[in-house]
Amino acid sequence: MPVGTLATVKGVTACQLRETGAQMVLANTYHLHLQPGEQIVAAAGGLHRFMDWQGPLLTDSGGFQVFSLGDINKIDDHGVVFRSPRDGARITLTPERSMEIQMALGADVAMAFDQCPPYPASEADVEAACRRTHAWLERCISAHQKSDQALFGIVQGGCFPRLRDESARVVASMNLPGMAVGGVSVGEPVEEMHRIVRQVGPLLPDDKPHYLMGVGTLREMAVAVANGFDLFDCVLPTRLGRHGAALVGGERWNLKNARFRHDHTALDASCPCPACSHHTRAYLHHLIKSEEMLGKILLSLHNLTQLIRFTTAMGQAIQEGCFAEDFAPWEPESPAAHTW
Amino acid sequence: MPVGTLATVKGVTACQLRETGAQMVLANTYHLHLQPGEQIVAAAGGLHRFMDWQGPLLTDSGGFQVFSLGDINKIDDHGVVFRSPRDGARITLTPERSMEIQMALGADVAMAFDQCPPYPASEADVEAACRRTHAWLERCISAHQKSDQALFGIVQGGCFPRLRDESARVVASMNLPGMAVGGVSVGEPVEEMHRIVRQVGPLLPDDKPHYLMGVGTLREMAVAVANGFDLFDCVLPTRLGRHGAALVGGERWNLKNARFRHDHTALDASCPCPACSHHTRAYLHHLIKSEEMLGKILLSLHNLTQLIRFTTAMGQAIQEGCFAEDFAPWEPESPAAHTW
Repeated sequence: MPVGTLATVKGVTACQLRETGAQMVLANTYHLHLQPGEQIVAAAGGLHRFMDWQGPLLTDSGGFQVFSLGDINKIDDHGVVFRSPRDGARITLTPERSMEIQMALGADVAMAFDQCPPYPASEADVEAACRRTHAWLERCISAHQKSDQALFGIVQGGCFPRLRDESARVVASMNLPGMAVGGVSVGEPVEEMHRIVRQVGPLLPDDKPHYLMGVGTLREMAVAVANGFDLFDCVLPTRLGRHGAALVGGERWNLKNARFRHDHTALDASCPCPACSHHTRAYLHHLIKSEEMLGKILLSLHNLTQLIRFTTAMGQAIQEGCFAEDFAPWEPESPAAHTW
Repeated sequence: MPVGTLATVKGVTACQLRETGAQMVLANTYHLHLQPGEQIVAAAGGLHRFMDWQGPLLTDSGGFQVFSLGDINKIDDHGVVFRSPRDGARITLTPERSMEIQMALGADVAMAFDQCPPYPASEADVEAACRRTHAWLERCISAHQKSDQALFGIVQGGCFPRLRDESARVVASMNLPGMAVGGVSVGEPVEEMHRIVRQVGPLLPDDKPHYLMGVGTLREMAVAVANGFDLFDCVLPTRLGRHGAALVGGERWNLKNARFRHDHTALDASCPCPACSHHTRAYLHHLIKSEEMLGKILLSLHNLTQLIRFTTAMGQAIQEGCFAEDFAPWEPESPAAHTW
């Protein structure tokens, strides 16, 4: 899922987004609550119509942003009180309020309001966050009343196998239409993330989609797919694009680099995106060096296309029965050998 | 002609540009000489391939930017010496050098290197600039050796009818494939510009395209078309778009204005652009208020589409014999009654 924080994947029109092959898009409850506010999105006919995205949409719960961006005044079992970074206004977010906002936004998938502890955190702190996350999940389930919107639960537990195990079992017992693993990609070593994915993946019900939150690097997605995950989200394709970087053959290239100045070949001859099919590295270098908006746009489109091609190829390999062979990340020839 | 200063119409892909209906694009010799340099554009196969624009392209001569942006060290009959604003390097631009650069860039139309005096300027100064412009035009014609590129001459003369008259006759006598009127839209009152257009238009040969440089407001284009002008260029559609302004019904709307916050109607229901056909004023307001790149992109596409629709409509009206009636700028119902 490309990330469309404020009901826009940065720099990309809905039409261009479709052409990347993207199927599902994520938007941020926290950001949309602050601007424009969920009532305006609801009055527009919901998030799909507001941003002109007819495909599936998912909203996160706002929890991650409250804990990572918010100026928190108080957090207890009831919920979180924080100050809006826009205007300093006091805002209370609770499981019930998160459900209300997400129901108004009207995405296809809503996420449970959870407490994502920072990394590192003590076992006692992570255990407390888990207990609160599970209690909040029950309140989310009671508050969520929208038959055409699925509610996914979130497994927490940090880097503690015992807590991950317990959280996976508690969340799985709720019989929700989908399950997510949160508290990864928060600063822990990548080996730790692989370990969590390998441990928790098999504990989740086979017949429900599994969503690994905040992960979108090639190797980590391949490891996760091998362990039963289906959904990912990542801001990297567009963030790197805005900063002049392109994903090519699993590497991260800085297009500002002088080595591209005279390079009149395609960025990636195998890529169908507008940057690769119509332009050269020299042109992209020129745009990035000149700080032209079009450079950021073309690299964002390229990076999105690369990630979608990668996940599409994994899907095909699974259907053709060659996933384990083709995407083994320890094989140097594997497209999943790299990360960025 | 939308303006593609650095081989990109800001924020717009070549494919989106085609969809606005634009036929011809202008690029800037001065800017492209400084970055990436004409040799890189030539090595890419010329400006059309570099920026992926298959339609007609025109490059200005660099003169206007040298006089308006350059840190000028010396100007004499030979040419202009100035310091690059990028790295302080000493650059000499002469008629011969401008032709060399424009031949390397390879647009369909090259412009003669002229001296555009500022506004206001004394009659003596404007007369000296005219004399130099005419001498430089002869040198441009000698230096220009590219059979698939047309060279247009430029009429100067400021706000002095005698000098405009003389300049028009001198430039017309050169029998070039096209003629331009420069030294307008440089700060003079709009009535003065209308007067110049009405005076000079009829003095230019009927069978050659007439280009009014730097003009792109609705009323001024209508007045110019009524006086035989065919070509225009203007940075306003994209510049206003980047600043959150939209051209609607001849008016300039600031989409940041709170009156659009709850307005779930199309920006302009008659407009086929992506902003109008897929989105609402409330969404555009949200994007501009959030400083999202997509807001700037969508408004740029809208404004470009508006101007191209306007010039296309003038062309149709001429063919149907109703131009004078439909586009009389003094009629309040005329689409040319407004400017922005």
